[in-house]
Amino acid sequence: MSNQVKFVLDESRLPKAWYNIVADLPAPPPPVLHPGTLQPVGPDDLAPLFPMSLIMQEVSSEREIGIPEPVRDIYRQWRPSPLYRARRLEKALDTPARIYYKYEGVSPAGSHKPNTAVAQAFYNKEAGVKRIVTETGAGQWGSSLALSGAFFGLQIEIFMVRVSYNQKPYRRALMESYGARCVASPSEETNSGRMFLAQRADHPGSLGIAISEAVEVAAQSDDTKYALGSVLNHVLLHQTVIGQEAMEQMQMAGDFPDVIVGCTGGGSNFAGIAFPFIGHALRGGQKARIVAVEPAACPSLTKGRYAYDFGDTAHLTPLTKMHTLGSTFVPPGFHAGGLRYHGMAPLVSHCAELGLLEPRSYAQVTCFDAGVLFARSEGIVPAPEANHAVKGAVDEALRCKAEGKSETILFNLCGHGHFDMQAYMDYFGGKLLDQQYDEAELAMALAGLPSVGA
Amino acid sequence: MSNQVKFVLDESRLPKAWYNIVADLPAPPPPVLHPGTLQPVGPDDLAPLFPMSLIMQEVSSEREIGIPEPVRDIYRQWRPSPLYRARRLEKALDTPARIYYKYEGVSPAGSHKPNTAVAQAFYNKEAGVKRIVTETGAGQWGSSLALSGAFFGLQIEIFMVRVSYNQKPYRRALMESYGARCVASPSEETNSGRMFLAQRADHPGSLGIAISEAVEVAAQSDDTKYALGSVLNHVLLHQTVIGQEAMEQMQMAGDFPDVIVGCTGGGSNFAGIAFPFIGHALRGGQKARIVAVEPAACPSLTKGRYAYDFGDTAHLTPLTKMHTLGSTFVPPGFHAGGLRYHGMAPLVSHCAELGLLEPRSYAQVTCFDAGVLFARSEGIVPAPEANHAVKGAVDEALRCKAEGKSETILFNLCGHGHFDMQAYMDYFGGKLLDQQYDEAELAMALAGLPSVGA
Repeated sequence: MSNQVKFVLDESRLPKAWYNIVADLPAPPPPVLHPGTLQPVGPDDLAPLFPMSLIMQEVSSEREIGIPEPVRDIYRQWRPSPLYRARRLEKALDTPARIYYKYEGVSPAGSHKPNTAVAQAFYNKEAGVKRIVTETGAGQWGSSLALSGAFFGLQIEIFMVRVSYNQKPYRRALMESYGARCVASPSEETNSGRMFLAQRADHPGSLGIAISEAVEVAAQSDDTKYALGSVLNHVLLHQTVIGQEAMEQMQMAGDFPDVIVGCTGGGSNFAGIAFPFIGHALRGGQKARIVAVEPAACPSLTKGRYAYDFGDTAHLTPLTKMHTLGSTFVPPGFHAGGLRYHGMAPLVSHCAELGLLEPRSYAQVTCFDAGVLFARSEGIVPAPEANHAVKGAVDEALRCKAEGKSETILFNLCGHGHFDMQAYMDYFGGKLLDQQYDEAELAMALAGLPSVGA
Repeated sequence: MSNQVKFVLDESRLPKAWYNIVADLPAPPPPVLHPGTLQPVGPDDLAPLFPMSLIMQEVSSEREIGIPEPVRDIYRQWRPSPLYRARRLEKALDTPARIYYKYEGVSPAGSHKPNTAVAQAFYNKEAGVKRIVTETGAGQWGSSLALSGAFFGLQIEIFMVRVSYNQKPYRRALMESYGARCVASPSEETNSGRMFLAQRADHPGSLGIAISEAVEVAAQSDDTKYALGSVLNHVLLHQTVIGQEAMEQMQMAGDFPDVIVGCTGGGSNFAGIAFPFIGHALRGGQKARIVAVEPAACPSLTKGRYAYDFGDTAHLTPLTKMHTLGSTFVPPGFHAGGLRYHGMAPLVSHCAELGLLEPRSYAQVTCFDAGVLFARSEGIVPAPEANHAVKGAVDEALRCKAEGKSETILFNLCGHGHFDMQAYMDYFGGKLLDQQYDEAELAMALAGLPSVGA
């Protein structure tokens, strides 16, 4: 059908396995190091935090890891997610390019995050865990884990960055609707939290601090584990259902992307769409350019250093090699809270080092310009994070127009903006500004990186 | 598949025609009367407000009215919408009943309203209209028309009930994201608005007043028409894609509903799911019980009078025979804003008089209890309006449990609650109360009904 805009896979085409890019990479990723010994960690070192099944996925180099049926049963509620041809956006841009987007906002929590939250909840439940503790910034991850906890009968406790806790009461209400407990971080409930509150009683918090609090709680209790919504290998792994489906849907459309665009914070939605395509090319298949878009105010891939660093601010986590702005770097409070993390996923960083992707950064106002154009063309109001991917795709489409090329562009629309309307109000009210990070603070954070040889 | 939870129709199964129940009713609905002459209105009387194509649909008695291809093209973005088997809810209720729900929250605006908004925008565009003026309460209708205006290049102007305008800035931001202009009603922009503001400078507004303002603006300008999101025959007609799809999806599931539940405000989502099933039974097919759930605080079907009444407060609209609480009745400010209308759709009212449905009313707190149970079981946080349908379905399922019957229950989940989280915050904070209407005010409103013979 020539005017087809929606490409839907039958339920039977829901992937049966997650795709592990490690199997296809020309070089293995650097090991994760123990923060005390600086030696590579073994599975047992991670056992206080994660169930063994997830640890084994974290270190696996198998190409395919089977998705358990109970996880697929829940995926089926909204997966395979739709792939759209953005015909009205193409028309608005007057571009010869064909623009496609994979839409992950159809999940009950409104983003791609449940792809891993459901899997993590399943493995924890299977391991006899009673409670999962986590952190959340903008709240997309927290609400997805809350949802998954409700499905599997697990208690969910969420340390929410205090500034978001106060600014986003509706996101908190969503987590509470799913039965989770939400705590403003830094809190009085942990040593890490009390330490930061002692430094500053009205501390606004950060993702790195909230991670410290959650890790601390999990490490202290036998029936409690920790969960992370991005960055780690097993989290990226779970997101690869996105790209696997997209690949098949592009085939349905009789097309193949010349360019694939994703936004990158911790890196999970980006890896979800990109890794299956990168692997396809590494195995000799058709190759696409891969564009990773990050916020100019938190530019780990474009301005960070590729080095070993901690995942949290209180330095309780293992050391991973990644593009990092330094674990003490606190990005300005721009609206794409899901992209406000000092580090990039080690696997995404490794791919960047291998030259498998093109990093790019944009300031937030131009991303909202693109997001509003997208909303008026396609009807979906994107999350502020997703606006970065929209902007990347729009720029590629405008390049095609300038060059007179009818290329095929695919991007991942990782979530809707229903819980981010304050950002749009600020935008329409002229109050949304491009925020700069503090150069001196970045230099200091980078200078403070742990001295670990590569 | 025995554990199947999602029933998705292929795009090719998108209905080609809307279903008009008038063709199958045993008695024709009473005529619409001119407010001046009290004689039946002709198409020309309505021409200042609507394009002729919609007026002809309003008075049609054809069983099937073809859906234009440009409308189907847009429907295809989210239609056919999914039908779900609520297995986790069944388990939570420990009921032998099978519960299914049709989910209309998958539209870009998050409710069933775009089904008619897109159609109305199309016909207006076709008729050369440049601007559509409407009213909105909670904002589901306003945002759906805003969306449709963006798709068809029409200017959309929305009179939003002032209390909602102030309480729901995010819903307003959504309409503005789609490029619509939002005005708090009563406003200084119309005679009706100025009249009500003169009575009370801080007037909170009502749906009836906002309709008066919108109708007044539309009637005064040649390139401007009016649009209504519920109540009218053509609006209900456009919603019948819901029930037509659901009927086919129940067939996919190898099942047929014993009971169908919908929530009723103006009546459009209810008619959307119920009319195709009622028509099926009227034509000799299998019959289901049809339950219409309304809020106890605005009970037009259960406590109103079946009489001719105005659709608006300033008495600018024609007179229709319907179950009404009186056009001056102002319901208390409960959270299901989409159900706060003094009248019920004439066609739904007519069906009630014919004994084709069972009206029922619930107070709001018990509806939120059901809604939160649903969110934790099924993952979707329902709109406050939809919570009434959830409550109706839960009660039917509990009846089945008490009676040991494994009946089949189908309800329409007409929208998600992403823009209604304040209501959930109030609920969890113990601030959501069951509000009573004022008995004396209702008596006065009913006494003030126009004296028009049946």
